[in-house]
Amino acid sequence: MTALRPEELEARLRDIGARRYHRLHPFHKLLHGGACSKGQVQAWALNRYYYQAMIPVKDASLIARCPDSATRREWRSRLVDHDGAHDGEGGIARWLKLTDGLGLDRDYVVSLQGLLPATRFAVDAYVHFVRDKTLLEAIASSLTELFSPVIISERMDGMLKNYDFITAETLAYFSQRPPQAERDSRFALDYVKTHARTPETQHAVLAALEFKCDVLWAMLDALYHAYVAPKHLPPDAFAPAE
Amino acid sequence: MTALRPEELEARLRDIGARRYHRLHPFHKLLHGGACSKGQVQAWALNRYYYQAMIPVKDASLIARCPDSATRREWRSRLVDHDGAHDGEGGIARWLKLTDGLGLDRDYVVSLQGLLPATRFAVDAYVHFVRDKTLLEAIASSLTELFSPVIISERMDGMLKNYDFITAETLAYFSQRPPQAERDSRFALDYVKTHARTPETQHAVLAALEFKCDVLWAMLDALYHAYVAPKHLPPDAFAPAE
Repeated sequence: MTALRPEELEARLRDIGARRYHRLHPFHKLLHGGACSKGQVQAWALNRYYYQAMIPVKDASLIARCPDSATRREWRSRLVDHDGAHDGEGGIARWLKLTDGLGLDRDYVVSLQGLLPATRFAVDAYVHFVRDKTLLEAIASSLTELFSPVIISERMDGMLKNYDFITAETLAYFSQRPPQAERDSRFALDYVKTHARTPETQHAVLAALEFKCDVLWAMLDALYHAYVAPKHLPPDAFAPAE
Repeated sequence: MTALRPEELEARLRDIGARRYHRLHPFHKLLHGGACSKGQVQAWALNRYYYQAMIPVKDASLIARCPDSATRREWRSRLVDHDGAHDGEGGIARWLKLTDGLGLDRDYVVSLQGLLPATRFAVDAYVHFVRDKTLLEAIASSLTELFSPVIISERMDGMLKNYDFITAETLAYFSQRPPQAERDSRFALDYVKTHARTPETQHAVLAALEFKCDVLWAMLDALYHAYVAPKHLPPDAFAPAE
């Protein structure tokens, strides 16, 4: 086994995205294509809230393990993006504008009471991965952001066109994300290409991105099972009114 | 908020089982009622293998946090039950007799390559719960065993009657479990009733059992989604031949 050249490693990472990123999941086709009921969109937003809320937690645990100031400083911008500079700012607050706009009670969303257990398990798996694996693998697991600008643009177009209960204002989260994701994923990709130089570390990096794709995919599998077909709601999970 | 009497706490725990134990899950109705294909039974056994394989890991992390010899000694019997006294003995080895009997390649099962990511996330959530929560909550999370003798007897009867590819020998795991589960759950229930005497600890104990029911339930949700309907297989998951 010989090491890949950095551009080969990048091509392999991009290939994982082309095959396994959750843009390909049937739930997203329904969501973006206008085939979801309002209740299904609510369930998606409510469950995805937990993912959003845990992002700065996983980023802080990553920063806590960085030995150098430059990487910590770079990664810190993610905390600012998600937690904001003041109350009511940042990505989590913008996500709550989406759940507000969908008519969900904010206290209920934040309480996580209606969360699908499978959502919690998948998101927590990501948080634990970042905390417990090597720094290189933790950084590589963020690389799904390489693929997010495309899905976000599809989502904004599709949802604005197809749902009368969605406005540009409720989608404010997504209008902010693409430049942040591009900056962040460029940094993470450079880091990975620079630091993964052996077959073993390159294998670990590719597996980390596959793992992260599995996390996002499993979240949509659980939504589909509970809210699309066969609509088996787990005990105590959010039950849409419509 | 006042504390429950120990027998009230037990009644509340048993009520959680009556409402949330995975015996009630639609997948188990199919499995025990003879409505599963061989491939679906294989998928169940292959995924459940990971749960079985991690049980002694979570039990060891529980023992590692016990301050007293008597509790450690009592809990140690679970390690013996699952890992056996010698190679080829114990619950994990008996589970592999089941996957063997179903025609699954043993190396493939043990490699976990075909595992549903959602199975991994749910099982790992249980392992992390036992490692990270209080000892009392860790012990309480084992109390699903209070309910397992009934499901095991339904399973053995139903599977032997309904599937020509299932024999008493392949089900050896289950014939051993009920007396072990009864002994273990009696100890854990006594422990919980003795040590959870405040409203806060009683609430934590009840939540721990609900959490564990969620773990088992989410595993079956994922199986249902991938192998029953709509049969959306996640990338790289086990694909049955029939």
